[in-house]
Amino acid sequence: MGEVHVNGSATKLISKPNSNGIALQPSNNHRGLWFEEEIEEDLRWVFSVSRVLHTGVSEFQDIALVESGPFGKVLILDGKLQSAEADEFVYHECLVHPALLYHPNPRNVFIMGGGEGSTAREALRHKSVTKVVMCDIDKEVVDFCRAHLTMNHEAFHSSRLDLVINDARAELEEREDKFDIIIGDLADPVEGGPCYKLYTQSFYELVVKPRLNAGGVFVTQGGPAGILTHSEVYSSIFNTLRQVFKYVVPYAAHVPSYSDSWGWIMASDKPFPQITVSETDSRIKQRLDQSSELRFLDGETLRATMALNKHVRQALAKEKHVYTEESARFVHGHGAAQQAA
Amino acid sequence: MGEVHVNGSATKLISKPNSNGIALQPSNNHRGLWFEEEIEEDLRWVFSVSRVLHTGVSEFQDIALVESGPFGKVLILDGKLQSAEADEFVYHECLVHPALLYHPNPRNVFIMGGGEGSTAREALRHKSVTKVVMCDIDKEVVDFCRAHLTMNHEAFHSSRLDLVINDARAELEEREDKFDIIIGDLADPVEGGPCYKLYTQSFYELVVKPRLNAGGVFVTQGGPAGILTHSEVYSSIFNTLRQVFKYVVPYAAHVPSYSDSWGWIMASDKPFPQITVSETDSRIKQRLDQSSELRFLDGETLRATMALNKHVRQALAKEKHVYTEESARFVHGHGAAQQAA
Amino acid sequence: MGEVHVNGSATKLISKPNSNGIALQPSNNHRGLWFEEEIEEDLRWVFSVSRVLHTGVSEFQDIALVESGPFGKVLILDGKLQSAEADEFVYHECLVHPALLYHPNPRNVFIMGGGEGSTAREALRHKSVTKVVMCDIDKEVVDFCRAHLTMNHEAFHSSRLDLVINDARAELEEREDKFDIIIGDLADPVEGGPCYKLYTQSFYELVVKPRLNAGGVFVTQGGPAGILTHSEVYSSIFNTLRQVFKYVVPYAAHVPSYSDSWGWIMASDKPFPQITVSETDSRIKQRLDQSSELRFLDGETLRATMALNKHVRQALAKEKHVYTEESARFVHGHGAAQQAA
Amino acid sequence: MGEVHVNGSATKLISKPNSNGIALQPSNNHRGLWFEEEIEEDLRWVFSVSRVLHTGVSEFQDIALVESGPFGKVLILDGKLQSAEADEFVYHECLVHPALLYHPNPRNVFIMGGGEGSTAREALRHKSVTKVVMCDIDKEVVDFCRAHLTMNHEAFHSSRLDLVINDARAELEEREDKFDIIIGDLADPVEGGPCYKLYTQSFYELVVKPRLNAGGVFVTQGGPAGILTHSEVYSSIFNTLRQVFKYVVPYAAHVPSYSDSWGWIMASDKPFPQITVSETDSRIKQRLDQSSELRFLDGETLRATMALNKHVRQALAKEKHVYTEESARFVHGHGAAQQAA
Repeated sequence: MGEVHVNGSATKLISKPNSNGIALQPSNNHRGLWFEEEIEEDLRWVFSVSRVLHTGVSEFQDIALVESGPFGKVLILDGKLQSAEADEFVYHECLVHPALLYHPNPRNVFIMGGGEGSTAREALRHKSVTKVVMCDIDKEVVDFCRAHLTMNHEAFHSSRLDLVINDARAELEEREDKFDIIIGDLADPVEGGPCYKLYTQSFYELVVKPRLNAGGVFVTQGGPAGILTHSEVYSSIFNTLRQVFKYVVPYAAHVPSYSDSWGWIMASDKPFPQITVSETDSRIKQRLDQSSELRFLDGETLRATMALNKHVRQALAKEKHVYTEESARFVHGHGAAQQAA
Repeated sequence: MGEVHVNGSATKLISKPNSNGIALQPSNNHRGLWFEEEIEEDLRWVFSVSRVLHTGVSEFQDIALVESGPFGKVLILDGKLQSAEADEFVYHECLVHPALLYHPNPRNVFIMGGGEGSTAREALRHKSVTKVVMCDIDKEVVDFCRAHLTMNHEAFHSSRLDLVINDARAELEEREDKFDIIIGDLADPVEGGPCYKLYTQSFYELVVKPRLNAGGVFVTQGGPAGILTHSEVYSSIFNTLRQVFKYVVPYAAHVPSYSDSWGWIMASDKPFPQITVSETDSRIKQRLDQSSELRFLDGETLRATMALNKHVRQALAKEKHVYTEESARFVHGHGAAQQAA
Repeated sequence: MGEVHVNGSATKLISKPNSNGIALQPSNNHRGLWFEEEIEEDLRWVFSVSRVLHTGVSEFQDIALVESGPFGKVLILDGKLQSAEADEFVYHECLVHPALLYHPNPRNVFIMGGGEGSTAREALRHKSVTKVVMCDIDKEVVDFCRAHLTMNHEAFHSSRLDLVINDARAELEEREDKFDIIIGDLADPVEGGPCYKLYTQSFYELVVKPRLNAGGVFVTQGGPAGILTHSEVYSSIFNTLRQVFKYVVPYAAHVPSYSDSWGWIMASDKPFPQITVSETDSRIKQRLDQSSELRFLDGETLRATMALNKHVRQALAKEKHVYTEESARFVHGHGAAQQAA
Repeated sequence: MGEVHVNGSATKLISKPNSNGIALQPSNNHRGLWFEEEIEEDLRWVFSVSRVLHTGVSEFQDIALVESGPFGKVLILDGKLQSAEADEFVYHECLVHPALLYHPNPRNVFIMGGGEGSTAREALRHKSVTKVVMCDIDKEVVDFCRAHLTMNHEAFHSSRLDLVINDARAELEEREDKFDIIIGDLADPVEGGPCYKLYTQSFYELVVKPRLNAGGVFVTQGGPAGILTHSEVYSSIFNTLRQVFKYVVPYAAHVPSYSDSWGWIMASDKPFPQITVSETDSRIKQRLDQSSELRFLDGETLRATMALNKHVRQALAKEKHVYTEESARFVHGHGAAQQAA
């Protein structure tokens, strides 16, 4: 190139070196880039994207971390929103704390999946917990989240965390130690996805239950639990657990970035105690590291999440389907593995 | 035209006269037509439309009734989903029944807005109610819904219904009778829309309260009440009512077609009684016409809707904003009136 | 229902009976309803819809006529835009007039497809034409367009039009008369659609050619002909015709509502004469009914449409693919027939 | 963090370090991320984005380079597609070569705008050209394209290129040298954008014309020139140039990624010679660097682009509007400068 002259109005030039890589101006965060999640074939949830922060790809799934307009940083796996900065606390508080609060003295926790690190983060807030084993099959997702999700930085570096890269089924079958709490933080069962075999009766019966201590509690995320969606997989997972455990407690809460209510299910062979609202508040205060407060759950909220509305409660009571590999139900979506096949 | 020959393969022709007007094949309900609601500037809720059943236009707003893929028939006013066949029961049961169940003996009800007819339908299920005045400013909407919403046909033809076409403020100011229950079933306060002046302190103080009988209850829909949206207008409407009434009870539930949790607020100068879950169930059984059951609410559900989660509960407690005409808050959207101006 | 009172502000009520059925206010023609055509899996053409005027369904395809924001009334078959009020003249003038202008004295015309009526309308503008046979398989589409497309009303009622409901192949095989001009106005070859077998070498050789008079001209629409799309089907149809006819002339023009350039191909066993720009203008003036002018074509335009750009011209010259039923190529899309199967 | 165990199936783990930054799998290039350009308020052009390669922001506009599904790498300024890898050759060959081919011996060229570098690249293919001055106001865009657009790498490093960062008007006013060719490669006139003042009569008369050598040619891009869009700005720019220059030649071609036909206009005070198709081909062969061929233009194509269709040609002939700062016309869109203001 020849000379570069900077004349005239050049003094007005403002250099804004874009050190973060790919930021657009905050004021222009809707300049044409959108993320579209196909909730159902006939329903879309679409939000603006101001930055694609990181993307990756693993043997199992596509991975992306984007800065969204409405939900802050959003983690996307296989084209489905997994977790949003703005409201991931709802999902993760609900997944982790009820089981640990209902257990008299949870010391060790096994997390199936949970590669994002937020589930471990919440479990580690319990002072009684001396060991959290987090077992995710997807090393890329784990590495990705460990590198990029700052809010889980401390958890990923806790000396109480054992991080294992393995298939959760294989890992549980190989291990000989038992746990007070086992948490299922797996992706929804989508056709072709890596996870649907970890929602079956035989898996719960033959793999999960033998690894629980006496009085241990299993809890799993259960998929959409809204008025219109609870029968996709939630009622079936509930009914499946009912075949395996004596005591099963479903609960739900609305997670805005999922555009739906979400369901979780606790299960145990020991009865869950009656705990009053104020007793729950006391346990939260006594048992949890008080460096930061829970944002969603307290005694009153927990009781409310456990009171499913009449419509969903009745549907769960009547559900007859049992989740097996041969009779799996799926939420809408397609796993990358299937596409590749 | 010349002759029409029907030759050869014509015997295969199947005539499917499309008597409903504009139906597409059920199996092809996603052939390109979509409704897109702009929830926020950076967030869209998009669902397929298989039929546009009816549309209209009034002095106040655009009106459309469409057959949607995910939500059945959907009523749309000014480009915002108002009510969907699939889950309107959640909204309308929550709007109507708590106030009437908490009142010892509700006999007359005044509905501000409610032109769709569903609010009146729910109120008329209470056997104690002898008169429901439904006052909507928009004759076109009322006529439209009376003609097209079959599930409200009976309510629109009830001898206990007085249907008035008027501005709710003007109507309440002119009337001399008082009511046990006044229900605010107005559109969300959007800029330029017809309704935001009916959410103000002065309106509640000077117009609504004087028309309540002793012990009367006012209840209003309160807009989005989700983790991320409760401070748009819900917390402000709550705090505004707190300036006017001695006892104010917010409650919320997820309404899937709104893609959010929704809020309502009851207010009275008489304390709301402590009612147990089983007592609520009894009242529902005793007081409501038993030709059909409530689908969403029962005692347990009602208690849960009244237990806002910690995050929203604390935000409402701290809210300082009072809704006046000069300091109005709005949800995203634009009224047709404003556009025309 | 009880009494209807119309009080107070009711005098402001303006009744706008919506006699057309389903009109939204012109000023609000983007209140949330959109038509989305999936051009490719990764490319969408999306326009606002203010009214769904009519829809229907036939044995062969979905049918809709909508009022669009950018293109006026739009006819949609199987989720693909077929014809738009704003620019259908480009497509139909290009499809019809070149072949008739290059023929010394076209008297009878056979149209395969063309159920919309616009192709017949253009052919009937030629004063030399005494008979137009329009043969469409889909009686529903024909009836639909005859009823709803006012600009083709006169054509549908011309005494020179013979309208036949039949499969074009069957009709041509059964007939014994021959034609000066045969026009292929069929839907694009989409997988599962009704038309792809009418673009094959054997069809042209065994069915079309025998029904042409000496010196007769066959012309067909040829699908997208843009820089990026000409090799989907256009170059193949061109090369296929080159196997069957001695003289083959491709030409193209941009049709905005198709979001692409479009291709047509003329073919004959008699050489096309060299016609100057001014001679073309003279023929248009002498041969066509002068009650209305052509809007797109004149001598200069016709010459330009026949000068494909270097990129597309070279691609056509090099094309080796011949269209057979076994080696069909398709444009993106899916026929309803396939979906039903 | 504690130990990381890699057990069992870990041998199957495939590490795919994503060295390019943010690539998704090619096979999954439609996993939810889309770019949406609002062509008009009621018309959208939407394509999938598999990677956001780079973004930046300048004083004047947002800048993004994305990997698109249908168009390869796409440069986006202020939310409008500027240039796509797949078909930018159409735009840039048409902008540059006609003017240079019609000039007897072009030696120096001034480019207003053109920061992308492609216009300079095309001009530099002419062996007669000893100097190309490229004057763009936006240093960020220039630096961005110089760094990221590999196909223009050579042009940016040519010793015949003088790259100037300045306002084109200011630069032309300050310079004392004259040019054989001046090229307007500016963004479309959008309201609030930086460029609309460079399409006015006074600018052409007082700033451009004085800097042309005798027999010099001015050429500018002219915005959308389709059947439905030529009257937005194209006909006005044409008519404005007609007030200033004795000979004005409009021409147009379809550019797929723009979803429209595009217009350019050449102007000179010396008559454009009659050049035959074969003479154009000869000039291309003799004058251009033969290391690579033109892909879009040759003699036949050039003649066709200059033959506007009847509809557009008549509209241009009748246009009365003259572009001034006070009576500017705009294409749909909004400049970032305006938004910031």
